[in-house]
Parts: sequence; C-alpha cells; structure tokens
Amino acid sequence: MKVVKFGGSSLASGEQFKKVLQIILSDTARKIVVVSAPGKRSQSDKKVTDLLIENAEYFLKYREINEGLLEQVVNRYSSIAEEVGIRTDIVSEIKADIKTKLQKDFKNEERYIDEVKASGEDNNARLLAAYFKEQGKEACYINPFEAGLFVTDQPGNAQVLPESYENLSSLKERSGILVFPGFFGYSKDGQILTFSRSGSDITGSILANAIKAELYENFTDVDAVYSANPFVVKNPKEIRELTYREMRELSYAGFSVLHDEALIPAFRAGIPVNIKNTNNPSAPGTKIVNTRTNTNGPVIGIASAKGFCSIYVSKYLMNRELGFGRKLLHILEDYNLSYEHSPSGIDDISIILREDGFGKEIEEAIISRIFNELEADEVKIERDLALIMVVGEGMRHNVGTTARASKALAGSGVNIEMINQGSSEVSMMFGVKEVDEKRAVISLYEEFFVSIPV
Amino acid sequence: MKVVKFGGSSLASGEQFKKVLQIILSDTARKIVVVSAPGKRSQSDKKVTDLLIENAEYFLKYREINEGLLEQVVNRYSSIAEEVGIRTDIVSEIKADIKTKLQKDFKNEERYIDEVKASGEDNNARLLAAYFKEQGKEACYINPFEAGLFVTDQPGNAQVLPESYENLSSLKERSGILVFPGFFGYSKDGQILTFSRSGSDITGSILANAIKAELYENFTDVDAVYSANPFVVKNPKEIRELTYREMRELSYAGFSVLHDEALIPAFRAGIPVNIKNTNNPSAPGTKIVNTRTNTNGPVIGIASAKGFCSIYVSKYLMNRELGFGRKLLHILEDYNLSYEHSPSGIDDISIILREDGFGKEIEEAIISRIFNELEADEVKIERDLALIMVVGEGMRHNVGTTARASKALAGSGVNIEMINQGSSEVSMMFGVKEVDEKRAVISLYEEFFVSIPV
Repeated sequence: MKVVKFGGSSLASGEQFKKVLQIILSDTARKIVVVSAPGKRSQSDKKVTDLLIENAEYFLKYREINEGLLEQVVNRYSSIAEEVGIRTDIVSEIKADIKTKLQKDFKNEERYIDEVKASGEDNNARLLAAYFKEQGKEACYINPFEAGLFVTDQPGNAQVLPESYENLSSLKERSGILVFPGFFGYSKDGQILTFSRSGSDITGSILANAIKAELYENFTDVDAVYSANPFVVKNPKEIRELTYREMRELSYAGFSVLHDEALIPAFRAGIPVNIKNTNNPSAPGTKIVNTRTNTNGPVIGIASAKGFCSIYVSKYLMNRELGFGRKLLHILEDYNLSYEHSPSGIDDISIILREDGFGKEIEEAIISRIFNELEADEVKIERDLALIMVVGEGMRHNVGTTARASKALAGSGVNIEMINQGSSEVSMMFGVKEVDEKRAVISLYEEFFVSIPV
Repeated sequence: MKVVKFGGSSLASGEQFKKVLQIILSDTARKIVVVSAPGKRSQSDKKVTDLLIENAEYFLKYREINEGLLEQVVNRYSSIAEEVGIRTDIVSEIKADIKTKLQKDFKNEERYIDEVKASGEDNNARLLAAYFKEQGKEACYINPFEAGLFVTDQPGNAQVLPESYENLSSLKERSGILVFPGFFGYSKDGQILTFSRSGSDITGSILANAIKAELYENFTDVDAVYSANPFVVKNPKEIRELTYREMRELSYAGFSVLHDEALIPAFRAGIPVNIKNTNNPSAPGTKIVNTRTNTNGPVIGIASAKGFCSIYVSKYLMNRELGFGRKLLHILEDYNLSYEHSPSGIDDISIILREDGFGKEIEEAIISRIFNELEADEVKIERDLALIMVVGEGMRHNVGTTARASKALAGSGVNIEMINQGSSEVSMMFGVKEVDEKRAVISLYEEFFVSIPV
C-alpha cells in the first residue's frame, strides 16, 4: 500500500489532473492520494494558496469580499473542471464553500487565515475525487476531521497529535482510492489549522506512517534530487538513492526538494520516500531510505548555503574554565539565537550562526555581555560566510576524503575559514567567504564527480 | 631588568650552583633570581620536594621525625655547600628549619604539607644567596612574606592576590642581586601556601610582571622547545621564537616545557619569556613573545596528546532545537566534566573530553540522562582518541595548509576521526585513534618540516 502525494504544480491544470489519474491507475498499490492546492502553471502564474491569502487579507481589511479576487480562485478550479470535462456544479459548490469561509464570523485572525487558505487543498481534493469518479473509478474525498487528523492549536504551525496515527490507520480498511487534502488538520473542537508552509508533504508523511505504507511517493516537477545545485554546476548527476541523514544534511544547506520536517513521521516508521516527477513518471526519481548500498564513492552530494556569520571569542586559559562554552551559548539563547556550530581551539571558540535575527543592535549587546560576564580577551564578528556541505554515507571512515576536498578547494584558491568534521558521519562542512561559495562548490563537484578518483 | 628563574635540575648540585653564578654575573640586567628546590642529579635521583613530602607524610602517620628521611634532605644541601665551599653552619640552620616545620603544631594536614614542601625552595634560595655573598657579590635572600607575595588560602593551588604586584614592584629599588624562593606565597595571616606543581615558574612570572621586567628568563635543561616530540620524531627542529598563543596550543597537546598557567602574569604584561639551558647558556633558547615575524612557513610545531574520548549524540532535527547543545554541556558540568571541543553536524554533535574523570559509571549515568532528558535518537562513546595539533601563527589565512596536512595523514594511512579548525587562528586540530598517533605526527612533521613545500 502506497501513499502518493502530489505537489501544487502536479495539480495546477486539467492536463496535470489527467497525468495524476494515469499515475494512480498504473499501480494498484497507490491507495491514498494527498492533494496540494493548484500551483503555478507558468512562471508568472499565481498559486491558489497565495490567491486565497489575498482574499482573506482583503476581507480582514474591508469586511467585504473582493469579487474579482474570488473569481481568480474559482476560475482556477473551473478551468480544471472544464479541461477534464466534469460536471460544473462542483465549481459552484467550491465557490460557495470559499465564500462561506471568507464571511465566517471569527475571533482570531490567524485562525481565520488558516481556514481560508486550507480551502485550496480541500477543494482540490474534492475536485480530484469527483474527476476520478466521473472516470468510473472507485474514489472518495476524505475529510481530515472525520478521519481523525487532529493537531495542536497553533495556527500556521500545527503539530500532529499522537492519537491521529491510530485514527488514520483505519483508512487502510476503506475500499477504493482515498483522496486526502494536504496541509491541514483539525483541533479537537473542529477548528481548521494548517501545518507550516509546504505542509502537504507533512500530511503525506503522517498518512504513510499511520497506514504503515510500503512507500511514500512524493510527486513533484523534477526528475530527481541532483548531486549539486544545477544553477551552479552544469548538468549535475542525479541521485538515485540517498539516506534520511544525507537528505537532512543536503536540505540544511540549500537543497529544498522536500520539506525536511515533513520526513519525521515517515522516518520514524522507516518508510522509504520516493521523489518522482509527475511530468515524467517513468523516471526512477530519487529514493530516500534508511540505509543504502554505497556504490558511488564517498560523496553523494554537495550543497551550500549563504547567510552565516561567526562570533569569535578568545580568553587565555579558557580551556580550564568549567562552563565557559555553556555560558556563552546561554547568552545567545537569551536573544533567541540558535547556534549552528561551534568549532573551538584551546583558548578560543567560534560560534557559527545564521545572520538573520543577528542584527547590529543584538550584536553589540552580545559583544558587551561576552566581555562583561565572561571576561573574554577578544571578541570578533565575521559576516558573509557560506557553508559548504560535502555529504555522503560512510565518508568518515574513508581515508583521504578530507585531503581530496581540501586540495580541491586550495586548487581553486578558496581559503577555508572553518572545517567542522567529526560529528556527522555523513558530512564534512567547510566555512568559506560568500564570494568564494560558487567556486568552492564547482571545485568540489569536479573533484568528486568529474575527475577520476585518485 | 630581568627576572631569571632556575629549575630544579639547574640547582641540583654545587656544579650547577657555579653555572648559575656565572649566568647571573654575565649579564648585569639579571636582577631577580627565582629558585627551585634541588632537583634530580641523575635519572635515579629523587627531587628534594618529593623527599620533603615523604618526610611530612611520615610525620603525619607516626607523629615523629624519620631521621633517615630527614638526613636525605639535609645531605642534598650539605653536599652542595661542600662542593661550592661555603660555611657549613648554614646547613645546620637548614636542618633546624626543616625540623621546626616538621614538628610544628598544625590544624590542617594540607597546609602542613604545603609548609614543609615549600621549605625546599626556601632553603635553596638561602643557600644560593649565601654562596653569592661568599663569592663577594652583593646578594640577598628575599622572604616572600616580607616582600608582600600574598596568595589565596588554597593549599597546593594558591592564586596570587592582585595587591601583590604593587608590593613586589618595590623590589626593583633594592640594590644587588635578589634571590627569591619560588613555588609559594603567604596568606595575609602568615600561612605558607604553595602554587600548583611547577609553581616556581609562576613566581618568576609574577615577579616579572611586578617589576615590569624587560625579559623573563626561564633556565631549564633543554636547549630549546622543539618543533615536535624528540621521542617521536628524530632530531626535530628547534623553535627560535614562538608566540604565547602558539605556546599554549602546543603545551595543551603535550609540550610541557613551561607550566602554562605560569605564563599568565607575564602574558598580561606583555613580557617576553626566554627558555634557556643552564648547561648551555650560550644557546639562544626559545623566546615566547606576543607577536613574531613569520619566516618559517605556516607551521611552527606539531604536538599530540592521548587520552581523549568522544560522546556522539544524534537526534533528528536537533538543529531546530534552541538550547540543545547548551543543555548537553550542562549535563556534563553536573559531573564536573570540562569538555574540550564539540564538532557538530546538522542533527548531531560530538563532545570531545579527556578520559580521566570519565569512568564507566559516569558514562552510564550521562548516557541515560542524554536519552531521557534530551530525547536523543542515538548516543555513542568512542574511547582511546588522540588529538594532533598543527600549530603556527597565520595558518588560518594560508590557502592549502589543510590540504597539505590532510594529504600527509591520508598518505600514511591515518584516518581522520575529527577536524576542528576555524576558531583558533594558530592551530588545526585532528582527532585520530591513539594507535595512529605516532604515524600522524611523523607524517605531518615530514610534510611541513622535511619535504619541499608543494
């Protein structure tokens, strides 16, 4: 039994609906279909979710519906219905549903927006189920409340409640294809609450866990995850199989194919995830698994991310001071700053963190606290750093990988500001100046994917 | 004006006393002489300090003096007096002094031992001053209490009190050579308290700071600090000049020429330290300075130390959890464990710490707390690790140093368990298995000191 999730671009038009039907029909194990709201049909198009937010914000401001904005949303559904040739009374139902939600009496603006924007997925699921049925297939729309997908009362960032898994597990007893709207659940008292953005991935992952699916298929619009950013490296190699750990390390540094929080429920249940292309379903895609056989050398992918900075602190004999590092981290926490890494020398330590949230004012406050409370000898801030991740299972035990990587960087004139290696068994991290980022990625890609291994 | 400190082996015999006199006379700037207790004359010899501790422990156990043990101490002084041909009544004074201290009424055993063992330095200073005077030089013994060297009331680990610097500064007004016993100071109420072991280096450093000496000369029994451990690398290069930071990083990983806490007072006053050989005083020795001109490539020394272990903790999405690292460090602190380094991946972190103090019982307690309190997915302990430090000023901004180092390690088949680079500007740290330690040091020495740079 498989859970199959389709992203917004996979359900953006009637043509896409037809592809989805073919995909579902081609494999009888595809039992639960998780549906996103219609996405962009072209670069200049708008996503239905964004249109719905505009509708909600207009109503909040003027206390009346903007009919033009509402029509834009309804048109998306009606053009799909027309294209696939199904009865158009469903479009009137969708319009009525959105109008009801827009005009609903509400106490809390965040919840109001959650309810309106979730209708994008909900109505698309209804439309897809109707289409399947008109094609003579046994299919039905599943309402998340009736199915028991209960979540915490956090608008825009709801977390699944543990009991939901038990509730949802009974879905596997139902006959036919089940079409389930992604992105939201319900509080116990029936209030709609959405997951964080890209939350349809989360819905799919929860369902895969609940029914103990053999596979969670995640259909999107790329053939595979690539071994490097295609905007930096020309025609990077596709990755066939990667582990959860590798996926996490890559997505940390800019690979954004899958919403990584979404993977937790599937990861906990050990369910493999297959990223596939709706527009090219015969391509094998990329499979995310617990363990894989290592066939391609030590490195599977090279990722990079900008926007980091470092706080360097030195103090003579710091090393002898019990609690120094912990106190330093506590100061950052007081400003709600999460640190990323902290390489250390004997009498110095650097804290690497993301630059957003670390403005000039906070910087000054933190520097003065480090001097005053920790009696540091020196504090220095370095901005505009990029982190380069070289990722691959088993890398740690591969003699010479570091040498190859650092030689490649040196060869292209990139200075290594920081190396963090030794905790993760699947990655090596280099800190470089942002201006060196692209050069660093290209040189590493050439070393590990193009040149003949030494 | 210079402060000159002589170690135990430099004052172990009459022959050594004569060398010390020549050294002092050869430079009129050598004003304050800091004296250790007589050390070993040969490999099988005992240090006076150790003999004194035996005397004290015997007395504590049996409440009477062991005359044989006492004679062993007195003999050391009398044989020096004989050799250098000075009046022997001073030896009777020394014997009387030690007897008084051994039989003194005491309340606290630790303080008792402090007082007895400090007499080793104190009497050697008296003896050296007497010898200088008999040689017709203007010289006098300085009592630390009268000079105002006040310390905290911590037996065996006394810390200098700030006011001491002001008190001691007036020593520079005194005429002649001042002979000052190392290793101890006094509490305000006149109780003798010793610094930590090798504390004569501390006394010298405090005095250098107090009189704002132009140089602090530290005479010992080696010609210089070497660029690598001579027991590992054959005939390693001598280091002419190294910075305080370099010294600290090297001494952290096994270079033990100077007691590194001892350097703090000199370091704070920016006073250079010259390590020289009593037995070869014309050799330039090694100078420890604030800044040096970099002439010898990026690396100045390679050190290594055994006895480390790592605690590896992984948790899916750890990276998103504010305070995870801090809480982890707090658990270690509860067991009084100081951590050395903490390389981190995205969802994992390793804590490197020294193995002593981290027994099996504490290991189990910590593992269970990490699982319970931090809800980690996995916790692993790795023991028998060695840290290799590659040290040199300016290394950080030298493109390619990492590549050279990691290539050298790979070339000798050493797997790198951990790299910690990016905080210290003067070092690169590699974690390897203990069995690989020697091979690692040799290969790095060959890369940076023997082979022609790439």
